[in-house]
Amino acid sequence: MIESSVPVPGEGQVLVRHTYLGLAPAARLQMGEAASYRAPMKIGDVIYGQALGIVQKSRSPLYREGDAVMIQHGGWQEYSISDGHGVTKVESDIAPMTVWLGALGTSGMTAYVGLLDFGLPQTGETVVVSAASGAVGSMVGQIARIKGCRVVGIAGGQEKMAHLRRDFGYDAAVDYKDAAFDGTLRKACPAGIDVYFDNVGGRVRDAVWPLMNRNGRVVVCGQISEYNDSPAPGPGWFDILARRLSVRGFILSDHASRRSDFLRDMGAWYQEGRIAIREDVQEGLELAVPAFIAMLQGKNSGKAIIKL
Amino acid sequence: MIESSVPVPGEGQVLVRHTYLGLAPAARLQMGEAASYRAPMKIGDVIYGQALGIVQKSRSPLYREGDAVMIQHGGWQEYSISDGHGVTKVESDIAPMTVWLGALGTSGMTAYVGLLDFGLPQTGETVVVSAASGAVGSMVGQIARIKGCRVVGIAGGQEKMAHLRRDFGYDAAVDYKDAAFDGTLRKACPAGIDVYFDNVGGRVRDAVWPLMNRNGRVVVCGQISEYNDSPAPGPGWFDILARRLSVRGFILSDHASRRSDFLRDMGAWYQEGRIAIREDVQEGLELAVPAFIAMLQGKNSGKAIIKL
Repeated sequence: MIESSVPVPGEGQVLVRHTYLGLAPAARLQMGEAASYRAPMKIGDVIYGQALGIVQKSRSPLYREGDAVMIQHGGWQEYSISDGHGVTKVESDIAPMTVWLGALGTSGMTAYVGLLDFGLPQTGETVVVSAASGAVGSMVGQIARIKGCRVVGIAGGQEKMAHLRRDFGYDAAVDYKDAAFDGTLRKACPAGIDVYFDNVGGRVRDAVWPLMNRNGRVVVCGQISEYNDSPAPGPGWFDILARRLSVRGFILSDHASRRSDFLRDMGAWYQEGRIAIREDVQEGLELAVPAFIAMLQGKNSGKAIIKL
Repeated sequence: MIESSVPVPGEGQVLVRHTYLGLAPAARLQMGEAASYRAPMKIGDVIYGQALGIVQKSRSPLYREGDAVMIQHGGWQEYSISDGHGVTKVESDIAPMTVWLGALGTSGMTAYVGLLDFGLPQTGETVVVSAASGAVGSMVGQIARIKGCRVVGIAGGQEKMAHLRRDFGYDAAVDYKDAAFDGTLRKACPAGIDVYFDNVGGRVRDAVWPLMNRNGRVVVCGQISEYNDSPAPGPGWFDILARRLSVRGFILSDHASRRSDFLRDMGAWYQEGRIAIREDVQEGLELAVPAFIAMLQGKNSGKAIIKL
């Protein structure tokens, strides 16, 4: 923890006082030297992450003092200076501030683009989601339900099973920590699996793999189970051929053009009460590190948020 | 080898005298009990395969004696009876008979659909093909050239290198049997790889994998290197995410609706002299087994054909 004086915005800049930080597993990929899809952080950098805040001083014509904003690269700190790059105004009359970090933020849009553009779910199909109670997974499950699919969530532990069924409306919840995991998953998917939204990789994916239906779609959104380890080999490729599978990796930042569609649809679903939200909010910057580690260990449900 | 009397066609049937058989690696998948995308052959069955032939007796209004036909499921035999299912008339004024087994047959259409519908090659992109001198691979390479791509072929041995460069017009030919394979492949793809048309799987795919560009497409058409072995695990999946790869398996029989497009385009390219053909023709039904084994061992270039 470093204390320094609050910075002063220059011409065209704003000073934002952070009120909430959003934690996301992908930041783990930047905490190391391995090649990835984001540049690694350097020792001494502010840890990367999204922040919500209030404009405290503005020397930009685009923002006024008191504006609520979401800053894509605000970082784990109490104030930040911005020239407006990656900053969007937050409409707190549509949803509470923190929802703009989760369901109406990057997590929700990741679910929306990944499921709809690459999973291509059809009414009546079976959609399986891993890390199903997480910030992205819980939105995938609910969007898939809205699209008329049978939705099966995979997560770890009895508490999350309750979240999946009770809060998020999954048709079935399967515990990967249970010894009978493979058999339970099979029973939960009597018609096989048409879409697998993969947030975790590893042995959960290996259990899903033999159940994939012909012409199935695998959306590779995250591989959290590998973020602390070296990459594991994928499942047998012959199945990709024999079952005409489509396996598609995507990174949300490539799909900014879908933002207005996302906000229109997800905003409507949220206001109609069709999207349940879980948040795991802890207070104090000093809790960001333990909360981040707990999230990677699968200990939280919903969006992990630090209140400042 | 079993000798029996020539069968007699019933009402609505035709008797076809086979003149050529087409050998295809996929038939290997039916010679065993492992689950696959085709039902296994049974002991005593005629070995499955395409045949070209001449209608010898017709009790069908659709065919006349003397018609040249291609029979999808004619099998490794000298005559077959058919009710017209899987039978198409061959236009020998457009191309010689045997071309209807290769470039204008299933091999060519596999290349056409796989490359164009799933590889989505763009002008100037780098397309890499394995088993590049084979019946499918040699067509993929030539179609990719027609589409304005840089095309790199992978095959085994110096003789095939000459075929790739001289006959099929590949921009570069890389020998996977060479000890310097990985480095040579890298040098042949200075701008990385945008499309990989995978006919073989295994270590050739593993060498291609690290060179795949962001937003690259992997078309999984065959996994010949594994057909005599148990399935091997695929490459690290994290790359699918980080590099936004699309991996797509397909089976031609799902895409019959593309047949008229294929015949229009490929027929025109062939007649314009833009498609070079190699055929490995051996004479006599008794050579079908050794020719089939040699094909799976990568010993032939072009379409493997048995003349009867």
